[in-house]
Amino acid sequence: MAHERRSETPQLVLAMVGLPARGKSYMAHRLRRYLGWLGYRTRVFNVGSYRRARLGVRHRESYFSPHNTAAQRQREALADLALADLLDWLRSGGEVGIYDATNTTRARRARVRERVEAVGVRLLFIESICDDPSLVEANIRETKLQSPDYVEMDPEIALADFRARVAHYASVYETVQSGEGSFVKVIDVGRRLEAELVRGYLPGKILFFLANGHAGRRPILLTRHGESLFNLEDRVGGDPGLSPRGERYAVALAGFVRLRLGAGADIAVLSSTLRRTVETTALFEVAPQRWRALDEIDAGICDGKTYAEIAAALPQEYAARQADKFHYRYPGGESYRDVIGRVEPVLLEIERQRRPVVVVAHQSIIRVLYSYFQELPAEECAWLRIPLHTVFELRPVATGLEEERHVLTVDP
Amino acid sequence: MAHERRSETPQLVLAMVGLPARGKSYMAHRLRRYLGWLGYRTRVFNVGSYRRARLGVRHRESYFSPHNTAAQRQREALADLALADLLDWLRSGGEVGIYDATNTTRARRARVRERVEAVGVRLLFIESICDDPSLVEANIRETKLQSPDYVEMDPEIALADFRARVAHYASVYETVQSGEGSFVKVIDVGRRLEAELVRGYLPGKILFFLANGHAGRRPILLTRHGESLFNLEDRVGGDPGLSPRGERYAVALAGFVRLRLGAGADIAVLSSTLRRTVETTALFEVAPQRWRALDEIDAGICDGKTYAEIAAALPQEYAARQADKFHYRYPGGESYRDVIGRVEPVLLEIERQRRPVVVVAHQSIIRVLYSYFQELPAEECAWLRIPLHTVFELRPVATGLEEERHVLTVDP
Repeated sequence: MAHERRSETPQLVLAMVGLPARGKSYMAHRLRRYLGWLGYRTRVFNVGSYRRARLGVRHRESYFSPHNTAAQRQREALADLALADLLDWLRSGGEVGIYDATNTTRARRARVRERVEAVGVRLLFIESICDDPSLVEANIRETKLQSPDYVEMDPEIALADFRARVAHYASVYETVQSGEGSFVKVIDVGRRLEAELVRGYLPGKILFFLANGHAGRRPILLTRHGESLFNLEDRVGGDPGLSPRGERYAVALAGFVRLRLGAGADIAVLSSTLRRTVETTALFEVAPQRWRALDEIDAGICDGKTYAEIAAALPQEYAARQADKFHYRYPGGESYRDVIGRVEPVLLEIERQRRPVVVVAHQSIIRVLYSYFQELPAEECAWLRIPLHTVFELRPVATGLEEERHVLTVDP
Repeated sequence: MAHERRSETPQLVLAMVGLPARGKSYMAHRLRRYLGWLGYRTRVFNVGSYRRARLGVRHRESYFSPHNTAAQRQREALADLALADLLDWLRSGGEVGIYDATNTTRARRARVRERVEAVGVRLLFIESICDDPSLVEANIRETKLQSPDYVEMDPEIALADFRARVAHYASVYETVQSGEGSFVKVIDVGRRLEAELVRGYLPGKILFFLANGHAGRRPILLTRHGESLFNLEDRVGGDPGLSPRGERYAVALAGFVRLRLGAGADIAVLSSTLRRTVETTALFEVAPQRWRALDEIDAGICDGKTYAEIAAALPQEYAARQADKFHYRYPGGESYRDVIGRVEPVLLEIERQRRPVVVVAHQSIIRVLYSYFQELPAEECAWLRIPLHTVFELRPVATGLEEERHVLTVDP
């Protein structure tokens, strides 16, 4: 129950550390999405964006040389400005500020630490270390060369320039060491972790997330079960089987997955324990993992009723739910916020998969998962339109997730 | 909601690694308590106990020499037996088996890994490294010299013998390295962690716990708020203030804490956000941390009612609660299991404190905390007798927690 934790969460600064092209921004971004979804007000302050916004783009590598004293002063001033904005934002109610900068020297980190601790906020350094040249090269090609810094430049020239920029940072780089306070080192995209003085609830949670995180590039397919006998009657919850149309969806979906991800492909299928998802996945080539945590929202005393019956018999409940569908908890049942709490372990399971993932679940579950992946404000998820017989396909691209919706035909 | 996770938990073996007197058994014990409290069926298999049970006690150091081939074969057979029992237990429904042995050589660990993976169960090595001689010495004096192996022996002779035993292990010790699968190294009682290939929900949770864990030796004082106006009427929930007797408890408690822990002592006080705990802690020297997660169990539609009213108006609810008080969820409210889920972050906060801790909360909250610290089966916690105006003082000793109950006088 994320809301229980809110009031006692001390504020926290996460300061990224690492050479360019080590996936710092990607990691910052994933942490922001995850912590935001859990209910923490989280924001990323990216120093590169400050530079581009204030000084314009197209800085060449020489600008990043440690011997270019004027530029270095400018860059430090921008880094300070971004940090000041972060601390201002915490003062006005922010909870987790992510400071996305290189912070590659001890001196720079000491300065960050001094300023954060001066306002009584805890600090955790997150260093990304990756010495696999192929990963670094892929990162540069996929993200850095798309940066406004290199727009309209010949890719090979841009690549050489960026490599020279990295070399400037590398020439003064000092890895985080004991004595610099709390830190986590994420080595080779989470294969190895080293952590010192990571204590407390939220830092522990972040460690947990980083242990499961990686830069996986696999599609995720989300869908509700096929039409159920209860769907026909606009009835909530229960454990009904599929309608004839729902059965045709099971056939269509199995065919679609096979075509889309390849026959015999190594994929992970996750579904709930309820009859309508079991029947929907009956023709899959791969046996689904059945998670109770993916079962539909528990409607408590409303379970098995139609919406009309609920409105008639429990008008106050009906009105309360319409007024705040996200926080509303069915008597004896769950709220959307509760659902986020119990879906979290499955989300981490999806995140750590390197194989394509297919999730066959229920309306509330697809809503909260979709809102995580597409970074919608959690409160809005309860109103998302997630129609039946539709596959939401999410494919990671450099800038986020590309979405395609496939409406499958279920009419005979 | 721990019960949501149960059905999909894959089984797991945690294999301890480390020299004698590095706190392995203590760590195994803490993990068992924590995972058990969260609802996982967890058991420790300690190879030392197998040796003592089957071969008798009083083995001298020469028995542990790597050159004593006969003894070594015997010890390996016992270690294999304990592991076989662990795997049998998993087969019969256990969820997390903790293999408490030294496992100090690569060859031994390879054997463990082979046997665990042969039955399709995941394995995580947990290595405890501690090179602080004072910590090791304290551990030997406090636990090892109390062992049945050294009963009735002169402590100095026993100490010398035990040190020689450690030296035998140290002579062949190989630390866990990349390539041995998933592992966590806990260095200097959690100050530093190193982890490789730790993925998935439960291993992540364990990493989180180890990051917060330490061998703290501080007293924990648990108490309910003083008598409230609702207590006088046998009424559930609400946000009432204290009765006159409750107010006198606030005076008595502040005095007791000052006397017991010392005036001006550096202590942590945790309480809830409700009026009755705020008033109970009003005279404390230290400002309490107020946690919403420590608020009383949410009684939903029964909030503010007396037990007699509930029994009369909602007889089925009343009966359902009596039948299974632990799992029973008040309509629109919480079950004890829900309470464990939301109290967990506060528990980790208490665990990581190195200062004495005073918790002023509510009946259900003290019940679940007490059942954690005193290792009672979670299901029984809902029936624990936690009277008003009583301080439960828990002091860590080598073998667990020593409990003292102080009933404070509140009559004028």
